[in-house]
Amino acid sequence: MRGLTFQGNGNVSVEDVADPVLEAPTDALVQISMAGICGSDLHVLHAGEAFGFAPGARLGHEFLGTVIEVGPEVRGVTPGDRVLVAVGVSCGHCIWCQEGLRASCEQMSMFGWAPRLWQHGGVVEGGQSEFARVPLADSTLIAIPETVSDAAHETMILPIIDVMSTAMHGLVTGRLHPGDDVVVIGDGAVALSAVHCARALGAENIICFGHHDDRIALARRLGATATSDLRDAEEIAEFARNATRGQGARVVVDSVSNTDSMQAAHGAVRPGGTISCLGMDHFMGKTPSVNWFDQFVRNITISGGLVPMGLYIPRLLELLAEGEIDPSPLLTDILPLADAADGYGMMAERRPGVVKVALKIS
Amino acid sequence: MRGLTFQGNGNVSVEDVADPVLEAPTDALVQISMAGICGSDLHVLHAGEAFGFAPGARLGHEFLGTVIEVGPEVRGVTPGDRVLVAVGVSCGHCIWCQEGLRASCEQMSMFGWAPRLWQHGGVVEGGQSEFARVPLADSTLIAIPETVSDAAHETMILPIIDVMSTAMHGLVTGRLHPGDDVVVIGDGAVALSAVHCARALGAENIICFGHHDDRIALARRLGATATSDLRDAEEIAEFARNATRGQGARVVVDSVSNTDSMQAAHGAVRPGGTISCLGMDHFMGKTPSVNWFDQFVRNITISGGLVPMGLYIPRLLELLAEGEIDPSPLLTDILPLADAADGYGMMAERRPGVVKVALKIS
Repeated sequence: MRGLTFQGNGNVSVEDVADPVLEAPTDALVQISMAGICGSDLHVLHAGEAFGFAPGARLGHEFLGTVIEVGPEVRGVTPGDRVLVAVGVSCGHCIWCQEGLRASCEQMSMFGWAPRLWQHGGVVEGGQSEFARVPLADSTLIAIPETVSDAAHETMILPIIDVMSTAMHGLVTGRLHPGDDVVVIGDGAVALSAVHCARALGAENIICFGHHDDRIALARRLGATATSDLRDAEEIAEFARNATRGQGARVVVDSVSNTDSMQAAHGAVRPGGTISCLGMDHFMGKTPSVNWFDQFVRNITISGGLVPMGLYIPRLLELLAEGEIDPSPLLTDILPLADAADGYGMMAERRPGVVKVALKIS
Repeated sequence: MRGLTFQGNGNVSVEDVADPVLEAPTDALVQISMAGICGSDLHVLHAGEAFGFAPGARLGHEFLGTVIEVGPEVRGVTPGDRVLVAVGVSCGHCIWCQEGLRASCEQMSMFGWAPRLWQHGGVVEGGQSEFARVPLADSTLIAIPETVSDAAHETMILPIIDVMSTAMHGLVTGRLHPGDDVVVIGDGAVALSAVHCARALGAENIICFGHHDDRIALARRLGATATSDLRDAEEIAEFARNATRGQGARVVVDSVSNTDSMQAAHGAVRPGGTISCLGMDHFMGKTPSVNWFDQFVRNITISGGLVPMGLYIPRLLELLAEGEIDPSPLLTDILPLADAADGYGMMAERRPGVVKVALKIS
């Protein structure tokens, strides 16, 4: 089959790769209809070797498709079922899965990401390819409801798998309540998802800080009540206060999570508020410095983290069914698998008009 | 009157100082019967000039006594009332006070601490002295219930004013639930209070890491189910896991909050758990480095901070009345005001057997 492969730092390409086969009785095989390129895949593009990627490793942890074969111990899905795969493998039974902390599952392996970091359940190849082997299929696969199972809905489903789930994680761990004010730092797909989900969850003022005109415009379309391209932390703080009756935001979603963004977040957050860190700049060595004095005297909580796989999918599917969210504008470009490397390039260079690229595979 | 004064970095002494007088119609004057020396007062002793202390400034933010005079607008207390003063001034009316965030009160001034940092309501002198002026008395003073108002109860009341309230803040912002496991890093008065409060709140395993035999013994007396003097972060992590069925603690109270203690805290906390930072080492320039990778992939929340003044006092008084807590062992030494400088010295040198020193004033 064809699949997108890592070819050393700076290079990805679509190659002929081995067809996946069932390896365990709990595996399923999925024919992939659409796969997303995630911002975190760009970290692999730039620096995958540092995370343990070898040439030939396949990427992609957001995908959906149709089950074509299942192992003898798979009970929850059958061939022909429309399914999505949410980021990584999880068992559904361990203490962490039971608590909703699936990212800490004892058998957690992320699809096509960081073999050196996540391999509790063995390395699993990514899904920017024609087919994928899905371990622990009963827990890892999530059925797509009949009402949104056809191809027309793929562009609405794909963004909820990771970026919108991650945004929900930021808002939920940030303890957002209806009527709260939210500041979002950044204008990438996760940031824009946070804007959109904050509106769906009943936030009052939603202020988005970004540096790309097209994305800021999209933020407004998705629910931002105010946007700004300010970069200076003090100016960001003043803008945020002015947009929140002088108080600052109850929840700040920091989709970048480096020193500059955290400084801006501290300026924008209200006393007793939460800064929810969703960014992965620290994977690239840009570890943020925290303003501990502010954290201490103003009682700021820092939350966020790696999204528990699948945790928010049921709620997001509900919001989708109710018309409360429409994530499809996040998918600005849909390319065939053969052009996947171009998709990486478009996202990496932040080409105007491009937010998130999906690959239409079958 | 006599009062303990800052005399430049490294020196405090009891001097003749001006008698306080009512300055505003909302002020009260309190004759102080007992005052505590707080660990944070030692930061002033060592480096007060950096926080804006000038020679002659009076210290002390934990004290109790009797109201002797009130301004014409004071409604809640009358001369003769037994009262305690919890750390700082707060108005009780602003949006932050209404939300329980009294440390962020628009008129917050901490008694005898950091004039350069907290002076929203003007500088207020400390209470390690015979008398104190208490601004916004209706909100700032807390009446001591009749049942615990006599001198015999002072040693039980004094530790709840700050150190035990701070410990409660750590546990509450750490979202402790009955049956959770708690790790406490440190063995000072706040750490030991966290041990004691964790027991009162129904924690299951309570593991305390400290470096002083006498304090570790006290931790066991106050409720620790396991104690250790390990210093190495990996060994601390292993000890904590072994004491928590291999899981790590739901709540880690870090009473130190520097890089070493935070490293230990990350090792001791379970996935999805909270590290509650109560230490003030960062005031002394020891800003902690956070393990962002761990924070991210294991979904660790960082909470804690400056205790909202008075917020936990009603609950602590209840626990006291119910016999669920007895904070008096924390007060290891009670000295007359004249010996206050010795008390600072005993605490600063961590003299064996000394945890917290109180001054018996009247």
